[in-house]
Amino acid sequence: MKKITISASKTYDILIGSGLLDEAGCMIAGIVNGRSAAIVTDDQVETLYSGRLEASLVTAGFNVVRYVVPHGEFSKNAANFISLLNLLADARLTRADAVIALGGGVVGDLAGFAASSYMRGIGFIQIPTTLLAAVDSSVGGKTAIDLDSGKNLAGSFYQPDLVLCDHALLDTLSRDCYRDGLAEVIKYGVIADEKLFDMLKPPIKLNIEEIIARCVTIKRDVVIVDEKEQGPRKLLNFGHTIGHAVEVCSHYEISHGKSVAIGMSVIARASSKMGLCDKTTSEQIVSVIKSFGLPVTTGFSAKELSAAALGDKKRSGSLITLVVPEQIGQCVLRETPVGELEYIIALGL
Amino acid sequence: MKKITISASKTYDILIGSGLLDEAGCMIAGIVNGRSAAIVTDDQVETLYSGRLEASLVTAGFNVVRYVVPHGEFSKNAANFISLLNLLADARLTRADAVIALGGGVVGDLAGFAASSYMRGIGFIQIPTTLLAAVDSSVGGKTAIDLDSGKNLAGSFYQPDLVLCDHALLDTLSRDCYRDGLAEVIKYGVIADEKLFDMLKPPIKLNIEEIIARCVTIKRDVVIVDEKEQGPRKLLNFGHTIGHAVEVCSHYEISHGKSVAIGMSVIARASSKMGLCDKTTSEQIVSVIKSFGLPVTTGFSAKELSAAALGDKKRSGSLITLVVPEQIGQCVLRETPVGELEYIIALGL
Repeated sequence: MKKITISASKTYDILIGSGLLDEAGCMIAGIVNGRSAAIVTDDQVETLYSGRLEASLVTAGFNVVRYVVPHGEFSKNAANFISLLNLLADARLTRADAVIALGGGVVGDLAGFAASSYMRGIGFIQIPTTLLAAVDSSVGGKTAIDLDSGKNLAGSFYQPDLVLCDHALLDTLSRDCYRDGLAEVIKYGVIADEKLFDMLKPPIKLNIEEIIARCVTIKRDVVIVDEKEQGPRKLLNFGHTIGHAVEVCSHYEISHGKSVAIGMSVIARASSKMGLCDKTTSEQIVSVIKSFGLPVTTGFSAKELSAAALGDKKRSGSLITLVVPEQIGQCVLRETPVGELEYIIALGL
Repeated sequence: MKKITISASKTYDILIGSGLLDEAGCMIAGIVNGRSAAIVTDDQVETLYSGRLEASLVTAGFNVVRYVVPHGEFSKNAANFISLLNLLADARLTRADAVIALGGGVVGDLAGFAASSYMRGIGFIQIPTTLLAAVDSSVGGKTAIDLDSGKNLAGSFYQPDLVLCDHALLDTLSRDCYRDGLAEVIKYGVIADEKLFDMLKPPIKLNIEEIIARCVTIKRDVVIVDEKEQGPRKLLNFGHTIGHAVEVCSHYEISHGKSVAIGMSVIARASSKMGLCDKTTSEQIVSVIKSFGLPVTTGFSAKELSAAALGDKKRSGSLITLVVPEQIGQCVLRETPVGELEYIIALGL
């Protein structure tokens, strides 16, 4: 087991190991003072794991309530947020009790926003069940729900009290879902950790504990200096500006991980063509992405992608911050006039 | 005009003066970077003041949208919270823009929670239009909405970027509403400021700027050391434990201010009978409350009030923190076994 301690506005541990789910009850009892816990999960994870979590919590003396949403992004909505808050109130949870997110990013975001809002903040534990959540959304304290007019438009910055990352839970993930997480893992290697990048050879699962720990450490180091996303945290957006455009153009049919894979490939090739990094770097990035069966380009045009990436910003004469790889393990932020984005994307497609 | 600076998790100014409403636009323009603002208000204040605020904002270059709720506690609900968030999104406000609460506590709480949640936090300005909001709810960063099962069950700690307290706006308040605010003013005098207490003689309006400034300063000094209400902030609850019970017993028919007036009177008399303060202190407190036409006792029994005050806590063998006056300007926190509360209330009724 590995332990990574995060000191943001709150100090908390991220524990990474196999079999942690069955020890969750007593670990959580050591962190929260109350004796009630609300498990928030989705219907898929519910079937697989919530029984074990509940058993562990009950053994540790907790009263447990469950809130189960259908799996998928749609569940991160305002109606579920309010009905989860009402459930916490009906179950008479106090500030000393805890909300436990058992699931991927959707569940973590929804549960975290409710935990931060209920009585202005109660205990919050993350138990990520996807690789993406393990390396990304469960770390950093961003919570959110979608509104009618856009994704993640409401939420809070709220750090958990504990993250339990039981990587044995990842064994039930579909190949496709696992790949989505790998795209973010590759991102961490490119922006900050050449050694991590070199570890990304199949079979990944042999080294998964070390890999997750390295990703989390990078995210921690960025989040500590920039909890509210004013500056350096933008490095984590490598591949995400164009990736986001791919998501939008595909009406979110192309998953986040695959979109980011495409975004990283495009910006890597463009950077090499603009002389911002050498060709080997760009080829290494594209090659590792390909090796995991992730896409490295898209049929959408540079014009479509640029329009989608800029959204409202297109109208102003402003700058956009691109994350550009200089070499494996080192990226820089580059302020770019919005008018140049289409040209840059075209170079990289 | 008086300026009080608060350094909590954010540093911001509270400006107290007459006629500030018409200068709001340029003052807010100096604080927020964006050029869009959402005015949140209620139907009564809308008629009286929102035109002037909007004119001032437009002159200062802002695009303005308005969100108007019916006046009264019921508007602090989840449906309004979500629909306000949707309005902010539809108006495409960014993190650089601001939500402006123009109204009393209900409007401030609702608008503040929305401001803290929209994009995980955008600009937030308070323009209190009641005495209660001026001296209490607009300072300290507590935001909230009610849920089906109780008041203020969801919310956040979120400091405003600026509080503009134009006390000329208080001139349109009903006598009854003004009195509600005075109950909180008396509270500040008793807990921390003998000089303020001595100023509480009609006509209050002559000294209102100084009075508000003193109240805000006391709240600031408490909030700075205890932003998240772990300890000393509990001093602000003087009169509120029993006051809350009066509100509950009356099904919120008796207003917050009047309930607190009753609560302060009861605990003052009980404290004197228990020998925790001398009789003169208790009589001074009750006398000033009476002098403003506020109630000093209630027909509810000690048993009813104690049950309502304790709620769930009754079941546990725990302690409740009472705020006890030692002399005018000085109160102490006193941990009291829940079983003694009924006896204490009976002493003070």
